[in-house]
Amino acid sequence: MATINVGLIGTGYMGKAHALAWRNVGAVFGARPDVRMHTLCDATPELAAAKAAEFGFTRATADWRAMVADPEIDAVSVTTPNALHAEMAIAALKAGKHLWCEKPMAPTLAESEAMAAAARASGRVAILGYNYVQNPLIAQARALIEAGAIGDVNHFRVEMDEDYLADPDAPHSWRSERKSGYGALDDFCVHPLSLVAHLLGPTKEVFGEMAKPYADRPAGAGRRAVETHDIVTALLRLESGVCGTIMADRCAWGRKGRIFVQVYGSKGMIAFDQERFNELQLYVADGPEETRGFRTILSGPAHPPYGRFIAAPGHQIGFNDLKTIECRAFLDRIEGRASTAVDFEAGLAIERTIHAIARAFDDGRWTAVASLSS
Amino acid sequence: MATINVGLIGTGYMGKAHALAWRNVGAVFGARPDVRMHTLCDATPELAAAKAAEFGFTRATADWRAMVADPEIDAVSVTTPNALHAEMAIAALKAGKHLWCEKPMAPTLAESEAMAAAARASGRVAILGYNYVQNPLIAQARALIEAGAIGDVNHFRVEMDEDYLADPDAPHSWRSERKSGYGALDDFCVHPLSLVAHLLGPTKEVFGEMAKPYADRPAGAGRRAVETHDIVTALLRLESGVCGTIMADRCAWGRKGRIFVQVYGSKGMIAFDQERFNELQLYVADGPEETRGFRTILSGPAHPPYGRFIAAPGHQIGFNDLKTIECRAFLDRIEGRASTAVDFEAGLAIERTIHAIARAFDDGRWTAVASLSS
Amino acid sequence: MATINVGLIGTGYMGKAHALAWRNVGAVFGARPDVRMHTLCDATPELAAAKAAEFGFTRATADWRAMVADPEIDAVSVTTPNALHAEMAIAALKAGKHLWCEKPMAPTLAESEAMAAAARASGRVAILGYNYVQNPLIAQARALIEAGAIGDVNHFRVEMDEDYLADPDAPHSWRSERKSGYGALDDFCVHPLSLVAHLLGPTKEVFGEMAKPYADRPAGAGRRAVETHDIVTALLRLESGVCGTIMADRCAWGRKGRIFVQVYGSKGMIAFDQERFNELQLYVADGPEETRGFRTILSGPAHPPYGRFIAAPGHQIGFNDLKTIECRAFLDRIEGRASTAVDFEAGLAIERTIHAIARAFDDGRWTAVASLSS
Amino acid sequence: MATINVGLIGTGYMGKAHALAWRNVGAVFGARPDVRMHTLCDATPELAAAKAAEFGFTRATADWRAMVADPEIDAVSVTTPNALHAEMAIAALKAGKHLWCEKPMAPTLAESEAMAAAARASGRVAILGYNYVQNPLIAQARALIEAGAIGDVNHFRVEMDEDYLADPDAPHSWRSERKSGYGALDDFCVHPLSLVAHLLGPTKEVFGEMAKPYADRPAGAGRRAVETHDIVTALLRLESGVCGTIMADRCAWGRKGRIFVQVYGSKGMIAFDQERFNELQLYVADGPEETRGFRTILSGPAHPPYGRFIAAPGHQIGFNDLKTIECRAFLDRIEGRASTAVDFEAGLAIERTIHAIARAFDDGRWTAVASLSS
Repeated sequence: MATINVGLIGTGYMGKAHALAWRNVGAVFGARPDVRMHTLCDATPELAAAKAAEFGFTRATADWRAMVADPEIDAVSVTTPNALHAEMAIAALKAGKHLWCEKPMAPTLAESEAMAAAARASGRVAILGYNYVQNPLIAQARALIEAGAIGDVNHFRVEMDEDYLADPDAPHSWRSERKSGYGALDDFCVHPLSLVAHLLGPTKEVFGEMAKPYADRPAGAGRRAVETHDIVTALLRLESGVCGTIMADRCAWGRKGRIFVQVYGSKGMIAFDQERFNELQLYVADGPEETRGFRTILSGPAHPPYGRFIAAPGHQIGFNDLKTIECRAFLDRIEGRASTAVDFEAGLAIERTIHAIARAFDDGRWTAVASLSS
Repeated sequence: MATINVGLIGTGYMGKAHALAWRNVGAVFGARPDVRMHTLCDATPELAAAKAAEFGFTRATADWRAMVADPEIDAVSVTTPNALHAEMAIAALKAGKHLWCEKPMAPTLAESEAMAAAARASGRVAILGYNYVQNPLIAQARALIEAGAIGDVNHFRVEMDEDYLADPDAPHSWRSERKSGYGALDDFCVHPLSLVAHLLGPTKEVFGEMAKPYADRPAGAGRRAVETHDIVTALLRLESGVCGTIMADRCAWGRKGRIFVQVYGSKGMIAFDQERFNELQLYVADGPEETRGFRTILSGPAHPPYGRFIAAPGHQIGFNDLKTIECRAFLDRIEGRASTAVDFEAGLAIERTIHAIARAFDDGRWTAVASLSS
Repeated sequence: MATINVGLIGTGYMGKAHALAWRNVGAVFGARPDVRMHTLCDATPELAAAKAAEFGFTRATADWRAMVADPEIDAVSVTTPNALHAEMAIAALKAGKHLWCEKPMAPTLAESEAMAAAARASGRVAILGYNYVQNPLIAQARALIEAGAIGDVNHFRVEMDEDYLADPDAPHSWRSERKSGYGALDDFCVHPLSLVAHLLGPTKEVFGEMAKPYADRPAGAGRRAVETHDIVTALLRLESGVCGTIMADRCAWGRKGRIFVQVYGSKGMIAFDQERFNELQLYVADGPEETRGFRTILSGPAHPPYGRFIAAPGHQIGFNDLKTIECRAFLDRIEGRASTAVDFEAGLAIERTIHAIARAFDDGRWTAVASLSS
Repeated sequence: MATINVGLIGTGYMGKAHALAWRNVGAVFGARPDVRMHTLCDATPELAAAKAAEFGFTRATADWRAMVADPEIDAVSVTTPNALHAEMAIAALKAGKHLWCEKPMAPTLAESEAMAAAARASGRVAILGYNYVQNPLIAQARALIEAGAIGDVNHFRVEMDEDYLADPDAPHSWRSERKSGYGALDDFCVHPLSLVAHLLGPTKEVFGEMAKPYADRPAGAGRRAVETHDIVTALLRLESGVCGTIMADRCAWGRKGRIFVQVYGSKGMIAFDQERFNELQLYVADGPEETRGFRTILSGPAHPPYGRFIAAPGHQIGFNDLKTIECRAFLDRIEGRASTAVDFEAGLAIERTIHAIARAFDDGRWTAVASLSS
């Protein structure tokens, strides 16, 4: 494929991130195919047109169905609210487009399964926006684990905390409505689960605990019950026999983007904090006792593709750069090359795990991931 | 009480720590009663005598029964292996001694209950060596929580990791035998539980997960099965309604004394790492957004009784100083003053929680702490 | 100006950074003028053409003189080796182009003065690539200082360390030749000086010390003397009366991009490390003693223009984003708006200070910056 | 020597620290000689008696001359204000006592020289309270440097900052009077200088800069001029050819006991912060680039004599423990064993350097340490 025509749905937080990634991927990686920013879609023609001018798309539309049907377009980015993912993704795949959809897949398992089925049937590349796995230092962590640098992994913990719902006086919104999903479980835990799957493999069974820090929130003149759970803790047992814990809290004052990963092995340990995602902590149990210690590895050209962004180590890539790497991973798949992109099959495994955790919480017992189906 | 005659059983790691605490408590706190280091007891008369000379005890003995019966002695420190605690503690209490016993209480709940009953019957002060709660910055954390500085607490996590069993080739020892207890659960989790109880109150129900990183260990010419679990994760629901997680791993390479505490509230958050126990992290959601952040509070005279040790802030107290503060808390109780000492009733609640977690692990379901009895 | 046609000279480390900044500035800031990537210039037509395709420039050339004379071009980026800056910059300014030149200005003070004179004569905007001052948290630091948050500043220290010349066995290169400049003084210290000027104002007099960690380096079959100094320390007295120290070492093993800034005031203190440039440390001496501490402020939308890149706080911008902010500051100046861009006048003050430090080192005495002229 | 009778002058901050060290040294190190806390001396008999009871001294006196002349006493600790050191130290040495004197030696070089001469003439052990060099991790740092772990050292920086004079409204005191010394130079810089001498050897020549953050301070109803300098920066050239910088500020808000040491070598780097003195940072330039990083070494039994205090690594010794190690180093010298104690000859070299820095500041030029004499 010499050129690739791109359509993007959505111009918000993630819409802009996709737009920047599409703008940058060629200049950063110096690689084919040549990306053409073909059409931008948002709710109104005016908004779409204004943002198309900003982001550098040639055309604008408010009709996403028309866009995904446009035969000129090769690949579609979907960055709309989760509840819209399934319909749009399935339509795009049916129209033969490659698909880059933001995470999570969809509020219900049935929809996620339908999305995966559509991807399978289409023969097209369909990936999800699990950008944290695209970090060069996460790639380094995986390489270290695979090379046995920390021996046999036997345990892990992953926490994900932010504070955007931490204010108890913040008004009730769709985020606190049951129809938007479970709460922190699908909103946040999908990220730790993507890292666990990426670094350590598939999950076999789970146990879950969820909590509501605030029972209700201001709504109009009164207060309205919060229907989702902003705190989740899940115990995981992986297929490999390794056990671990994932934890998420979207009311964690002071945490802005913390994803703290700890992987324990028989010869060493790895720790990583997304709030300092250009640093990787590594402890290896070798050499004299008196000089052992966790080492802080700074991201640099030794951790590809960091060097595509900056020639000097320790100068730090940013969040949007992770999206550009993800975009490159998407293009690699389209071109038939292996990549770290999280495809719909891998995404479906994450969704199944999410729903298994919710069921385990309801039932108060260990639940097999495989037992979940829509 | 003008003077207090002290007997100490044990001269190992904790025995020395108690001896130093007894030596220092008067000089540090400048307070009555006057401590007399009366008798030191260990397994052989020779060892006892040698260590008595080092530690500054007047007498030495290998007969602990005689020592705890000695009418001159007012208070006894017990620092022997856990399996010996019950017999020694009960004998000392029956002999009318005040008691400072190392944690945990005993391998079985029945023994722990018997110890608590003996304490109740004796009318004497009986406390446990939960030294981490004696940290001036933990006192500060508790004061902040009680004053509402972080609002209503809604969540917590406590991790405790060390690596003294991390080497898979370390020989099998009593630590891996079932008769020594559950493993990390009673060896480590009692510390996080003491902090949770101290900061947040009693636990209502629990869920537990345990794992063995290494199935067996070298023993003689072959290998012997590990019978204990070196990894534990427990979900807790407190009486207050707050939920949280405690995690422990004694095979965590690189962690030497990590106890990482996170307490989440409606107005802020507290974090603390025992490996940097002269620092407290505090985030408060007030003031302009652009200057909010976790602040690192360095221990100093503003955090009593730090100033009793060092006049200048930021100069750091050490682990043995925590033991001296604990000794002072013991003396305060003996003198009829309130203190942060963890007494046998509080200790029994910790033991009950430990056994409830073990049962929850066996049963795979939530277990009420109150349901546990010997 | 509705559109701006850009010419870029150089495609290396900084050339790519400029190219990415030009690509992104419109999409990130959603602002006019419309940037047109007109012509890319490098040493050979082939290289220029290949990189123009990658970076998205319409045309390519190996003739920089022709490019800077091209009447279609409005602004020129110069990212070539320092020794070429003066000639190119002066030519571009004379041709009426706005100019964005990488730092430092030039190896000699005479050339720097000529560049500044050319800028003055041209009436065009001429700025230098001091990207570190463009960090939203440096803007925050400056705002805090100006608002008196840390009281009256009385002292500062700035260190800049990297290790790209730390290997004593790395071959001799132009970086160790006297004709390339003084060494760390002009290569590194210009950055600390730009931060000092930006945060604290102009420098009055200086003292300097320089050193060579390695006397010679491998060259061919033998070794060749190192003519530059890789270590510099300079004492500064500012016009304001504040004193401070800047330190630079380009042989500092393990440091990859450390620029550690400490600013001391009568009410508080600010600290900042470029290796964690999404964090700012602030201590303010107010509130109760027991909860005072350095707070770690994470970069977020509260620190403009962070929010132009990412909607969520704590997600981190990267080094290339600093260049995009600098590009925006350049455009602001071109459009007649104030901005934080470091212009040639400010750059010349930095150059004068550099040469004053070198003279102070030679003479072993305090040297007035104003005494320097070519 | 089977027993050693100790006399201590002073019961303030350092007096208490010496008392605790004397109490603990035997119990911690399990070593001879047997320490007898013989006499405590302070300004009034009442204060001396009260503190003697607290600290565990047998006798008390307000007559230091009588005490240092007491033939029963073998060793004397002097912890009085600096201006009193010389008279007391010389008297004690003349009386044949071993001497442990707090740092610095004395306000004038003449007094320091007289003290050193008295020590020489006495044949007794005379050491100074440079406790920071007694840290097990500083010993580790020295061992690493000596073993060539970081190659040939070529540069260093040491900062020492506290904030006890940071408040501009704190009343004028003796600390701001010229007769107490230079200010931060003798009050603080002696510590960095002791570390530089201990780790890197003697200093050859110096340059100095000093500043007053506050020109005057409240005194009675008005204000009084500050006569000392609270900020110092000194450039050092060592006998070895290594250059470096020491910096001190006792008005540094938020810094409580920061002594930040950086040592740069041809194969690696060491960094250390006294505010986290149980941690040592080490970078070694070996192994694959992608896993290099500064490692954080936690103090433990692998760093003697840490294990004398605590059996488990990572549990942290405290400031007072450093004093106990120093006491042990004093006893070692008395017993004829080598130790890390800083004796009066080493102390005099520090004093000479201090006065050379002051002269360099006055003269505005490099000054040879050897040129200084009273």
